[in-house]
Amino acid sequence: MKKKKDFRVEVKEMARKAKWASHQLAQLSTPIKNKALLEMANNLERHQEWLIKENQKDLTVGKKSRLSSALIDRLRLTPSVIHGMAEGLREVARLPDPVGEVIKMWKRPNGLMVGRMRIPLGVIGIIYESRPNVTADAAGLCLKSGNSVILRGGSEAFHSNQAIGQILRKILANIGLPQEAIQIFPHTEREAIREMLRLEKEIDLIIPRGGEELIRFVASHSKIPMVKHYKGVCHIFVDETADPEMATRICLNAKVQRPGVCNAMETLLVHEKVASRFLPKIGKALQKEGVELRGCPQTIKILSPIKAAREKDWFEEYLDLILSIKVVKGIQEAIDHIARYGSLHTEAIITSDYQNAQKFLKEVHSSCVLANASTRFNDGFELGLGAEIGISTSKLHAFGPMGLEELTTTKFIVYGEGQIRK
Amino acid sequence: MKKKKDFRVEVKEMARKAKWASHQLAQLSTPIKNKALLEMANNLERHQEWLIKENQKDLTVGKKSRLSSALIDRLRLTPSVIHGMAEGLREVARLPDPVGEVIKMWKRPNGLMVGRMRIPLGVIGIIYESRPNVTADAAGLCLKSGNSVILRGGSEAFHSNQAIGQILRKILANIGLPQEAIQIFPHTEREAIREMLRLEKEIDLIIPRGGEELIRFVASHSKIPMVKHYKGVCHIFVDETADPEMATRICLNAKVQRPGVCNAMETLLVHEKVASRFLPKIGKALQKEGVELRGCPQTIKILSPIKAAREKDWFEEYLDLILSIKVVKGIQEAIDHIARYGSLHTEAIITSDYQNAQKFLKEVHSSCVLANASTRFNDGFELGLGAEIGISTSKLHAFGPMGLEELTTTKFIVYGEGQIRK
Repeated sequence: MKKKKDFRVEVKEMARKAKWASHQLAQLSTPIKNKALLEMANNLERHQEWLIKENQKDLTVGKKSRLSSALIDRLRLTPSVIHGMAEGLREVARLPDPVGEVIKMWKRPNGLMVGRMRIPLGVIGIIYESRPNVTADAAGLCLKSGNSVILRGGSEAFHSNQAIGQILRKILANIGLPQEAIQIFPHTEREAIREMLRLEKEIDLIIPRGGEELIRFVASHSKIPMVKHYKGVCHIFVDETADPEMATRICLNAKVQRPGVCNAMETLLVHEKVASRFLPKIGKALQKEGVELRGCPQTIKILSPIKAAREKDWFEEYLDLILSIKVVKGIQEAIDHIARYGSLHTEAIITSDYQNAQKFLKEVHSSCVLANASTRFNDGFELGLGAEIGISTSKLHAFGPMGLEELTTTKFIVYGEGQIRK
Repeated sequence: MKKKKDFRVEVKEMARKAKWASHQLAQLSTPIKNKALLEMANNLERHQEWLIKENQKDLTVGKKSRLSSALIDRLRLTPSVIHGMAEGLREVARLPDPVGEVIKMWKRPNGLMVGRMRIPLGVIGIIYESRPNVTADAAGLCLKSGNSVILRGGSEAFHSNQAIGQILRKILANIGLPQEAIQIFPHTEREAIREMLRLEKEIDLIIPRGGEELIRFVASHSKIPMVKHYKGVCHIFVDETADPEMATRICLNAKVQRPGVCNAMETLLVHEKVASRFLPKIGKALQKEGVELRGCPQTIKILSPIKAAREKDWFEEYLDLILSIKVVKGIQEAIDHIARYGSLHTEAIITSDYQNAQKFLKEVHSSCVLANASTRFNDGFELGLGAEIGISTSKLHAFGPMGLEELTTTKFIVYGEGQIRK
């Protein structure tokens, strides 16, 4: 009982310090933030051997507790992974500083000049799994956007995250910035996360990064606004007028280039007028890459023998070399299917028809909607945000990839000359 | 037990219908939305007598249950209040339609054209108190921004809200739009609100409008993202170089023009170098308007006899003819005081010093920060948003007055020519 109480006090104290630091961070100049980021990058590389040694502790525990080889792989810090983290920080240093930007300014009839200025959110809590490089990536993005960050990584990466955090915090101290701006959560118990999720006064935003189970846990316990990233059940609709060569190239890319990610295609919708021509071609190409196909009755007729898709397949995020295929009467049925089974993540149309391209882009309300391009482009780097801290599939605050701008809010600023309200 | 279960089903069914209607609403053209708004305005005026009769039922109950005369006043529908509601809807019809606006578009090195397009949020739940005109205002803003709305007004305005809602819904039906887009919550029990606040799948945003108690109730029960508007403890800092005549005019306006609203000044901060000159002048003017002054020790020395301000006064939103006054050493102490006691609502500086104006506008992180203008301008109409559905003092999604744009989100749209990810 006593231990639990101490726990609560400790987590709250941590968040309070982060809040305090955030006031200082909000006022930092761009050059000092960039200097910190570049020194962090250099020091991660300089202490590579130590990082790998600390990472070894996690790997040893992980192997003992029989983590899958895929998880062990994600967990591993190699010179190349560490170089990647450093390069990520350097990239963030090169991005424009969003803080203080006035995104709009207008004049009122009474002469008031009204503008909207970007300011940091304050304290951001990030709850993530396995990959220790998220520690450096997220800390860098939060620092550049003027936010304090509380990082709670997976228990399996505990030592690696603490080590990376130690290096980053030391840089802050070295150049006279508050170390409390980057906090590495020292507890792996779920109860400690619950305490963190209660601190709505101290923490302004929670971003969970990880599987659906983690996100649902955070959502059901958080009193703090959060940006959710649920699953990506991404669709491609191949329209009647699609260039078959382009459709094949894009579908292959969307399904097999990296099947385990959220913007990979999970369901292919094909216009009935081209199904008998297009499906054998794409079916063969996908099967050659090892993709298991599951089809609607019409698809089965064309591609037999393949498995039948059940109702639950249309909701499925396989994250694997499996694809469900449905033949549809036309664009309206495709849009309706996406509205019913989709996850608001990423959808694409392949078409040569101007009206249909426009209709699809307008009427499909997912976070990213593409015409004649691969779903794999729904990513902060690929869309030109420079970096990303996650992809939101909830519409509040941010929808789609979140870059530096999405880690800020805007306040109204007003330049007057003595105006009063009549 | 059985009754409670039916309750849950009913509220959920209501929200589901609103969700279904929101898909249709999202695709409406601007002219059809404007037509609905104008017909709603005309019909409110046409049915004025009936509205006043229905309103009388609420007034009778209100008087029996001894509502304060201020509350009865807010509740009352008069021809002029009804005309005001109608004009509000006409004004919303004149505002630009935010839905479908592409706020930005850029080209990626691979030729992809990436843009951000505004889309409605979906279903918005509004929980409010007393004033029945909110029913028409909120319904109009949600319709124009393509959102379905579930309106839960105060129990004391039950009949008035139902009557207004009936008129608005009839117009939707008359011109072939789904009535389910505007839902008037038929229950006054708190348990029914609790059920509504659990529907995170059906409702996208909750906006509570009312006292702090209502907002805290909603915040502690909601699983749905919400925009909070807590109290407005607004400050004016009169700097050393302030024009005394301008400072007096603005302070008077901010305090007495309408003391019961959230953007009225509650605390006056005065630079010590001008305190002995400025305070007697403004003190006299405020007292002439019936304002009770409560001062820090230095203020008392200058303005004696006045009450002493206690620690809790600095946190107070009086919403009344009371003002707390503190003498500060300079701009930094003013900014620190606001950071400690403020509510992130509205703050103003009166100064002739360029650097101090800029410092204040940059470093004070309230939803609206003004130089040389009255705090009373923090309002959607006054700042030029055309209308407002509330003022957010939480930073997520929207911060400050929320107009039509703040009732939308943006999705990414991508025009490609067959690009795939390398």
